[in-house]
Amino acid sequence: MEFPKKAEIIAVGSELLLGQIANTNAQFISKQLAEIGVNVFYHTAVGDNPERLKQVIRIAEERSDFIIFSGGLGPTKDDLTKETIANTLGRPLVLNDEAFQSIEDYFKRTKRTMSPNNRKQALVIEGSDVLANHFGMAPGMLTEHESRYYMLLPGPPSELRPMFENEAKPLLLKKMGSNEKIVSTVLRFFGIGESQLEADLEDIIDAQTNPTIAPLAADGEVTLRLTAKHADEKETERLLKETEAVILERVGEFFYGYDDTSLVKELSIACKEKGITISAAESFTGGLFSEWLTDHSGASKLFAGGVVCYTNDVKQNVLGVKKETLDRFGAVSKECASELAKGVQKLTGSDIGISFTGVAGPDAQEGHEPGHVFIGISANGKEEVHEFHFAGSRTGIRKRGAKYGCHLILKLLEQK
Amino acid sequence: MEFPKKAEIIAVGSELLLGQIANTNAQFISKQLAEIGVNVFYHTAVGDNPERLKQVIRIAEERSDFIIFSGGLGPTKDDLTKETIANTLGRPLVLNDEAFQSIEDYFKRTKRTMSPNNRKQALVIEGSDVLANHFGMAPGMLTEHESRYYMLLPGPPSELRPMFENEAKPLLLKKMGSNEKIVSTVLRFFGIGESQLEADLEDIIDAQTNPTIAPLAADGEVTLRLTAKHADEKETERLLKETEAVILERVGEFFYGYDDTSLVKELSIACKEKGITISAAESFTGGLFSEWLTDHSGASKLFAGGVVCYTNDVKQNVLGVKKETLDRFGAVSKECASELAKGVQKLTGSDIGISFTGVAGPDAQEGHEPGHVFIGISANGKEEVHEFHFAGSRTGIRKRGAKYGCHLILKLLEQK
Repeated sequence: MEFPKKAEIIAVGSELLLGQIANTNAQFISKQLAEIGVNVFYHTAVGDNPERLKQVIRIAEERSDFIIFSGGLGPTKDDLTKETIANTLGRPLVLNDEAFQSIEDYFKRTKRTMSPNNRKQALVIEGSDVLANHFGMAPGMLTEHESRYYMLLPGPPSELRPMFENEAKPLLLKKMGSNEKIVSTVLRFFGIGESQLEADLEDIIDAQTNPTIAPLAADGEVTLRLTAKHADEKETERLLKETEAVILERVGEFFYGYDDTSLVKELSIACKEKGITISAAESFTGGLFSEWLTDHSGASKLFAGGVVCYTNDVKQNVLGVKKETLDRFGAVSKECASELAKGVQKLTGSDIGISFTGVAGPDAQEGHEPGHVFIGISANGKEEVHEFHFAGSRTGIRKRGAKYGCHLILKLLEQK
Repeated sequence: MEFPKKAEIIAVGSELLLGQIANTNAQFISKQLAEIGVNVFYHTAVGDNPERLKQVIRIAEERSDFIIFSGGLGPTKDDLTKETIANTLGRPLVLNDEAFQSIEDYFKRTKRTMSPNNRKQALVIEGSDVLANHFGMAPGMLTEHESRYYMLLPGPPSELRPMFENEAKPLLLKKMGSNEKIVSTVLRFFGIGESQLEADLEDIIDAQTNPTIAPLAADGEVTLRLTAKHADEKETERLLKETEAVILERVGEFFYGYDDTSLVKELSIACKEKGITISAAESFTGGLFSEWLTDHSGASKLFAGGVVCYTNDVKQNVLGVKKETLDRFGAVSKECASELAKGVQKLTGSDIGISFTGVAGPDAQEGHEPGHVFIGISANGKEEVHEFHFAGSRTGIRKRGAKYGCHLILKLLEQK
């Protein structure tokens, strides 16, 4: 059976219709499907109501040949997606041994008792390809029925996303067996605004058709997605590399990595490669930088430790900032940033000490506007301090600070 | 004409189907409508394609009597929502003088020249109530046609939200002339799973019709939304309070707050009220707890400081954990948690010291499985340690740990 091309996504859950959550699953799935060349024509959200869900399925069957459902696979009475689809297709539900085993293991691991309604989660529509759930209990599935595909995915994004990327996407690509390869790569930039990047590359972006170039700004970073199509995969790679080279010749100094990487990941990799350890003294970032650096396993190899020095007491007593520095220049100063960086480096014995001091807002502090921040770096027996004026919300300013922290250390490591 | 009760929301825009943005407009409108007692039964997203939009309108007309559109009111060729609806209803578009004036003013104010396609934005379906746009150019509108209502709203959330709240909602309430008030409240629980909560309350949830009770699990927490309807607003309040009391009698020990609050917010409020300061020694949470507590301004009043003690060196040298404790029991132990909590309390001089030590995963550590964690609390001259076995991803285990930290301190403060 040829793989269908007209997809639509049906999200099941009354919480969507009450506005308690946004349908981010539809966004995620759409983006993923676009990458492998499947066109999504409709999104629908419907409540936990079998009659209305049935009608929505009938409408979808008239206009689409690939219907993706999210939500309603849980253990409670509300969760009826699987039952309703099985019923609509006239196919029985059968116990999937692997899924049942995985649910049993989950309960053993968390030392809880399995309740009977959890068994319901291990049922799948007969004849389905089962999609394993490594972050929850309900398995997903892909079912072929009368020249249509039906895919069922769990509702929680923390389960749906890895299941789609690691289980569903490879299965779809296998079923598609298409001979035109679509290959996409994302170039990530930091320290340059979207309009500046677009202005610098305007002629290239306008002229380019294969690969296409799509800029996107998010979270203080800018990305360019290059997408090439060709029957020969090697040729798509060549097309991508050629365009990438032209782009990096102009704005390479702001480029830091590919695809799903992040400044923190790149920093972790660089530190591990060079055997460098980092410590952090965080005032306005409040622990965000430390939290990022320790969010990947193996962090103990590179992260020597952190101190959240929100108060002047901790700055002085734990990190050794001089009282006269705080009295004369204040906590939001070049001098304080420098002593904090040196202090945390000394305290932890790390190769690099970094400090963040400034005003996250919303109120001004010591006469400084929100967004006025200093980032200090202590390494190789000397300190350097960078001063910034960020715009945005409290959370935005904290994030931007932590990202610049990664960026500055990466630049330092490049020089070495 | 009686105001319709079956609403659905149609979002128009190919960017939704490509996954470039999430349909947050549908969430916003649904929440707003729920508040005034209008039930939303479906969300649909469709691309900038007149044929498919027409079909979606036909489907909506068969099942709903209030259809709300968002997006596609702009000046470009892609923007065709208004034209397609006018065409479907067989009603002409006419120039709205006020909207035209407001567009002209906008161009004068921003010192730009108005292009001819901007005039298109001032067209409205004849006979509509016009909804003024104070944050953009395209006006919204509400049209009655053959016992149905059609509402058109602009796509950008910065325009749609104020238009809905300030223009559309008052108009709807006027049209409704309803005297039935609908009031909703959300009860938030932590430390109990969704299926356990539902099992404990099954008979109440099943029997209850006014208020209705809707459970929802997200991010390790469970919420119950109670929604009461009555002509007398005081009576809705009484109905809610009555049901809340019955629920809390059974599962009150897990209840921590109402509506949009969070564990961190509740903890911040409780600490500020009682003048209590907190410090944190974070191993497996890596700074997450500190980051949460400092994410609101005024955090310096309650957060005395934090140490991210990922390595044993920092545990020993900065926080004073004994070498023999680490040698004999390991870092992932009751004993280490206890000394860490005491150590950070002493270092910062805070009222309460909390510690997080354990295995975030994905790999086991010191012979402990991922999710095996200890949380220590030092207060009033004594230490207590809580042991947990969490399931989930590395990030999930860290979050759960930080949430339990808030929960445990809140419980401690309640006792005082």
